[in-house]
Amino acid sequence: MNQDYIIPNEWSIIEKGFHKENITASESIFSIGNGAMGQRANFEETYSGETFQGSYIGGIYYPDKTRVGWWKNGYPEYFAKVLNAPNWIGINININGNPLDLNKCKVSDFKRELNMKEGVLTRSFNAELTNGDKLKVNAIRFLSLNFNETGAIKYSVTPINFSGEIEFIPYIDAGIVNEDSNYDEYFWEILQFEEEENEAYILSKTFKTEFHVCTGMKVDFTLNNYEINLNKEVEKKEKSIAFKYKTNVNQGDIFTIYKYGGYTQSMNHKIEDLIFTLEKELQKIAIIGFDDLYQKQKDAWQKIWETADITIEGDIKAQQAIRFNIFQLNQTYLGEDSRLNIGPKGFTGEKYGGSTYWDTEAYCIPFYMSTKDKNVAKNLLLYRYNQLDRAIENAEKLGFKDGAALYPMVTMNGEECHNEWEITFEEIHRNGAMIYAIYNYVNYTADYSYIPEYGMEVMIAVARFWQQRATFSKAKDKFVILGVTGPNEYENNVNNNWYTNYLAKWCIDYALENLQILKADYAEDYQRIIAKTKFSEDEFDAMKNVADNMFFPYSKEEDIFLQQDGFLDKELIPVDQLPKSERPINQKWSWDRILRSPYIKQADVLQGIYFFENEFDKNTIKRHFDFYEPLTVHESSLSPCVHSIIASKIGMNDKAYELYLRTARLDLDDYNHEVHEGLHITSMAGTWLSIVQGFGGMRNFNNSLSFDPQIPKEWKSYSFKINYRGATIKMYKNHEGCKFTNESDAPVDIKVHGKNVTISSNELVALHRLESI
Amino acid sequence: MNQDYIIPNEWSIIEKGFHKENITASESIFSIGNGAMGQRANFEETYSGETFQGSYIGGIYYPDKTRVGWWKNGYPEYFAKVLNAPNWIGINININGNPLDLNKCKVSDFKRELNMKEGVLTRSFNAELTNGDKLKVNAIRFLSLNFNETGAIKYSVTPINFSGEIEFIPYIDAGIVNEDSNYDEYFWEILQFEEEENEAYILSKTFKTEFHVCTGMKVDFTLNNYEINLNKEVEKKEKSIAFKYKTNVNQGDIFTIYKYGGYTQSMNHKIEDLIFTLEKELQKIAIIGFDDLYQKQKDAWQKIWETADITIEGDIKAQQAIRFNIFQLNQTYLGEDSRLNIGPKGFTGEKYGGSTYWDTEAYCIPFYMSTKDKNVAKNLLLYRYNQLDRAIENAEKLGFKDGAALYPMVTMNGEECHNEWEITFEEIHRNGAMIYAIYNYVNYTADYSYIPEYGMEVMIAVARFWQQRATFSKAKDKFVILGVTGPNEYENNVNNNWYTNYLAKWCIDYALENLQILKADYAEDYQRIIAKTKFSEDEFDAMKNVADNMFFPYSKEEDIFLQQDGFLDKELIPVDQLPKSERPINQKWSWDRILRSPYIKQADVLQGIYFFENEFDKNTIKRHFDFYEPLTVHESSLSPCVHSIIASKIGMNDKAYELYLRTARLDLDDYNHEVHEGLHITSMAGTWLSIVQGFGGMRNFNNSLSFDPQIPKEWKSYSFKINYRGATIKMYKNHEGCKFTNESDAPVDIKVHGKNVTISSNELVALHRLESI
Repeated sequence: MNQDYIIPNEWSIIEKGFHKENITASESIFSIGNGAMGQRANFEETYSGETFQGSYIGGIYYPDKTRVGWWKNGYPEYFAKVLNAPNWIGINININGNPLDLNKCKVSDFKRELNMKEGVLTRSFNAELTNGDKLKVNAIRFLSLNFNETGAIKYSVTPINFSGEIEFIPYIDAGIVNEDSNYDEYFWEILQFEEEENEAYILSKTFKTEFHVCTGMKVDFTLNNYEINLNKEVEKKEKSIAFKYKTNVNQGDIFTIYKYGGYTQSMNHKIEDLIFTLEKELQKIAIIGFDDLYQKQKDAWQKIWETADITIEGDIKAQQAIRFNIFQLNQTYLGEDSRLNIGPKGFTGEKYGGSTYWDTEAYCIPFYMSTKDKNVAKNLLLYRYNQLDRAIENAEKLGFKDGAALYPMVTMNGEECHNEWEITFEEIHRNGAMIYAIYNYVNYTADYSYIPEYGMEVMIAVARFWQQRATFSKAKDKFVILGVTGPNEYENNVNNNWYTNYLAKWCIDYALENLQILKADYAEDYQRIIAKTKFSEDEFDAMKNVADNMFFPYSKEEDIFLQQDGFLDKELIPVDQLPKSERPINQKWSWDRILRSPYIKQADVLQGIYFFENEFDKNTIKRHFDFYEPLTVHESSLSPCVHSIIASKIGMNDKAYELYLRTARLDLDDYNHEVHEGLHITSMAGTWLSIVQGFGGMRNFNNSLSFDPQIPKEWKSYSFKINYRGATIKMYKNHEGCKFTNESDAPVDIKVHGKNVTISSNELVALHRLESI
Repeated sequence: MNQDYIIPNEWSIIEKGFHKENITASESIFSIGNGAMGQRANFEETYSGETFQGSYIGGIYYPDKTRVGWWKNGYPEYFAKVLNAPNWIGINININGNPLDLNKCKVSDFKRELNMKEGVLTRSFNAELTNGDKLKVNAIRFLSLNFNETGAIKYSVTPINFSGEIEFIPYIDAGIVNEDSNYDEYFWEILQFEEEENEAYILSKTFKTEFHVCTGMKVDFTLNNYEINLNKEVEKKEKSIAFKYKTNVNQGDIFTIYKYGGYTQSMNHKIEDLIFTLEKELQKIAIIGFDDLYQKQKDAWQKIWETADITIEGDIKAQQAIRFNIFQLNQTYLGEDSRLNIGPKGFTGEKYGGSTYWDTEAYCIPFYMSTKDKNVAKNLLLYRYNQLDRAIENAEKLGFKDGAALYPMVTMNGEECHNEWEITFEEIHRNGAMIYAIYNYVNYTADYSYIPEYGMEVMIAVARFWQQRATFSKAKDKFVILGVTGPNEYENNVNNNWYTNYLAKWCIDYALENLQILKADYAEDYQRIIAKTKFSEDEFDAMKNVADNMFFPYSKEEDIFLQQDGFLDKELIPVDQLPKSERPINQKWSWDRILRSPYIKQADVLQGIYFFENEFDKNTIKRHFDFYEPLTVHESSLSPCVHSIIASKIGMNDKAYELYLRTARLDLDDYNHEVHEGLHITSMAGTWLSIVQGFGGMRNFNNSLSFDPQIPKEWKSYSFKINYRGATIKMYKNHEGCKFTNESDAPVDIKVHGKNVTISSNELVALHRLESI
């Protein structure tokens, strides 16, 4: 049991006391990252207990050979695994010849803190070795936002009850295996070692993909804050290199090693420059020095928090949780590189392989769009644009043609990284999320240029897919989409999933609508795109026919869109009537039983209603929420947030808060007993959405930004900021009312509770007793 | 390409000429077995080319660790693999120090013959070694029907152009790995070696399952037919033991080694007796001698053929094929041991794991019932009866209770050996086949005692499963069965598969009907069964309610039972309109495309109509055949036979013959390019059914045995025999008419073309110009 050991704090994640059973969980929770790389919170010194060692570099993957019980045509032979990278943080310590290993010491005053305001991980403890030697250790570590190929460690040791010999053994190790590897193979080949002075470098490359990575370290020492030089002994093994520094210390001395390390890699540099470039980087940051580097780190995080922060008064655990989520999202992705994306576990684990799910489009883009410059969201869209050719190839493998595209369920480089037919081949709604994200982006940013420049090609390719994927049912006299898995993965291979059909029709309509706009207003782009895609009038008509005659399963009696054909044949017993002993059903029930049950893993019909809320009246929304939510088990981390947002919308505030709680501290409180595998990065965006779109009621449909702020009765107040078309708007809400501040130079028009409000530049508009405005 | 190289012959399978590309295919086709064990037709001497070495012992399996891409609750952790057994046939040959290896010689006059009349495999060839030495080899091998733990080899070598030294190295080797192994582990542990005179024994056991097996050999020699003694050198390795015999021979000499070998195993003997018993067996058959043993083998096969044979005049390939199928079925299973069953590959390969599918109940039981004593079919039923507890456990794993049973999709010991959720958990119709087999047996043999003694318990357990598996649909006001895979595995997770629902209702009705009979006529058995199963009146009523209110998908417009809900939403394009380049679809299409297509892998609705033909009129049958057969791709070896039988029934004789051809020579002509993996043993019963029930029109419903003989125009005549309730009836049919012979002591009543005919004991009734009777 490792739940509930994290100490509540507004700005920090804190663990006190040494508990071996929490090690792997804490390694996940205290993970650090800078968007370009990240690492689990492994100890610098050796640890012989249970640990999951993990360092990761954005964009570096390995095509592991597929493992499958029964092969199905169309499965990828290989797929990209998140790749455990060489370790540069290691510093082994020997005290009078005895290794420091917390698994074999008496440990006291153990404290670990992840300071989210500053982006720094600290750790301190006293250790008593088996021979009675006691020492105190302080370790500080961060991955630099300013120099994102590097990180820095300050690791201090003080003898408490002895004087004697201390040995520091900083090392870099490229002999790394993946935790998640299908055949326990080595993924890295070692190419070259370099060492000079207090620096060491290993150049390695991945097999097959041939990513070249230089891993390096540079170390300095101080004794009681005075720089000292030490002689070293070099220990070079087949895949690692270590320096041994010995010195004698007196009781009470503070002996400190500064270790600067990191990676340069071939996505960003020429292979022949990798070692040299890393040398330069490490030398540069060493000259800046640990303290100044730390100050820059604080400043950089300060800048992120300026727009990204959400404050919550009156609930310190909620405050801690939302900052944790915002912090981890920013550690994972900062939006500067359109070749990167937001992996489901970020840089905190390996499970699931690949990095990019439709989570990015459905959940993460709104977060990044509101908390950062619009180019960040644009980079996420460009990621998919750049992979369009692969998506077309992927569709061709499944028998589609003429430029139809199917984006993979999960990917690293555009190729599919998943092989479970009911998901890989059938969970095709993901294709619609690609287009929804474009729509969402253009809608929010008003940057229409994205469509002629990039988006239209993706829209055509996806619309082609839907047109080819739909088939005509004589029996229904409509187009149907057979054999799909909707967002609710507790149904497989169903016919006419309402969400999928709705999205398919919408994708075609939206593509055709934009084609008309381009034809009228962007003639040159239009011609280029028509020529490139070979799009014809006939195709236009065929698509329109499918969209206009799409079938939607519906029950007249219940006045409900049905999740799929035949949904009402199920025994519709609400979740709350299931015995507790049978929950979660994905652990207690066999798969067939789950499939024939009515239980919903995550929003399905309601996902569609959430995306297209403006197309449904409030009664319809409520009717569907009342019908489907009681059947929803929320066994996906992406489920509660959407339901929470809808519950807020329809005035079910208690329900909204209850659902919010299920997502907010998912990892911090380890609801599902799996945090040791890594954090649920993408679902963290869902928590942000639950507050901003849920309690805050922020919407952006039809060129109008609106708010409908509520506040959970458990909170005193909360506030968030959003970037909107160049303006920064701050929303503050308490039980008296709400206020909006326009922190930018131009006035902004918004709606609050349905009423138009204009906020002038740098003005604060306070809305007390809301019914009066 | 290894199709079409088998030379047509009435009684033999013959291969002429040495073609390396045919080796693995021939190893399957020329396989030999005696019901207790079997082996692929591997060469005795070493062969360094591509080969699949395989020896198998009935009932011996290994629980291999499951391999799966994405784990689902309910999957078995381990499942039983058909286990490659130690090799006792090996005889390496050195000529003047050079090994005989057909992969490295010039080979001429190569001939291989499987004499099916006698159950003997022979092989002869001339080989020229690289040094120019030429020799002639004759090898004869069989597995004894009379002494079924043993086999014998006579292997003769004649120097053609040299005199010199020949070395014979007979060996036994327990260092065997499975071709089909998930993690390339050794499954056998070596326990003990014994050797004395010209005999050697290895005692080994399987890991985990601890089957103990003694493998042994005993060798004798003749030179020009005179017994000789040779000194040996013993070569013992970690897992094998070989004897080296050297002698000088002159050009033209015939030097022969007789090798007697086989296994004793712990299913049949005490572990401590295994070596001793095998010694006795091998010494016994060596004393009998090769020639007399061979004579006994002929006699034993003669006895099998007496009832099992089918003659076909005018089509030698058809004659060869049907005998091949009958021969292989008898090599695989002789029905004396209720712990054994008929594996899909018999003793000819390992693919699929496990040994027992519903193929046994649906296809094999009718064959064995008609061609052997009724105890053989009864043993096959008892196999399932004895595994009832495991079937109940299996159902419990999936959430069923109170003694409901789900028989596994494939099994060796009653546990599930399959893990693909859409099959393992959902292809539940197999459960109905267990009951259908009981019904079929009782119907055919009139041995009702099986039901009170054994069958009733199985029926109750299966009926319980169906009652619990069905759920009530408010929308349909009927019981529905959701989330199943029917016999047509090209649909997964469908609702209300007509065949499954029909069988479920029938199983309940049949169970309840027999419960009533037992209550009235077998009171003691009834009381025992009620007490043992805790069956209650309430349960009776609940079951009846489900059966009486079962939903059957049906189209009024088409007047067709629908394969499943929503079937008519598919694009119903007949198979013959698919481009040839897209067939077989299971190789050309991705799985999702297959699933949403209307194409049928094997009989589904038609399987039900075949089983319960007496419940449908001819028009209904024809309507369904005309609707479904054009959508059927017959990509299961079990498909064409059922369709052929129905086509015969409805007078579509050309279609019936066309479909018959697709099953008759499946392996001999290697239609699917997979014969190297082993033979399709269970589907061989389908060919027999196509002739006897198809062309012969044999039926057995309502205590009446009837025939409706047709003959393909390509044949001159055909004949078959059946055992029926103690009588042996021979049917002969040509284009003039048909005749029936009653080879038994009592008269038999049959129907021919709907008319009653009584055939007296040993009488022949000839029916010429059939329309006149």
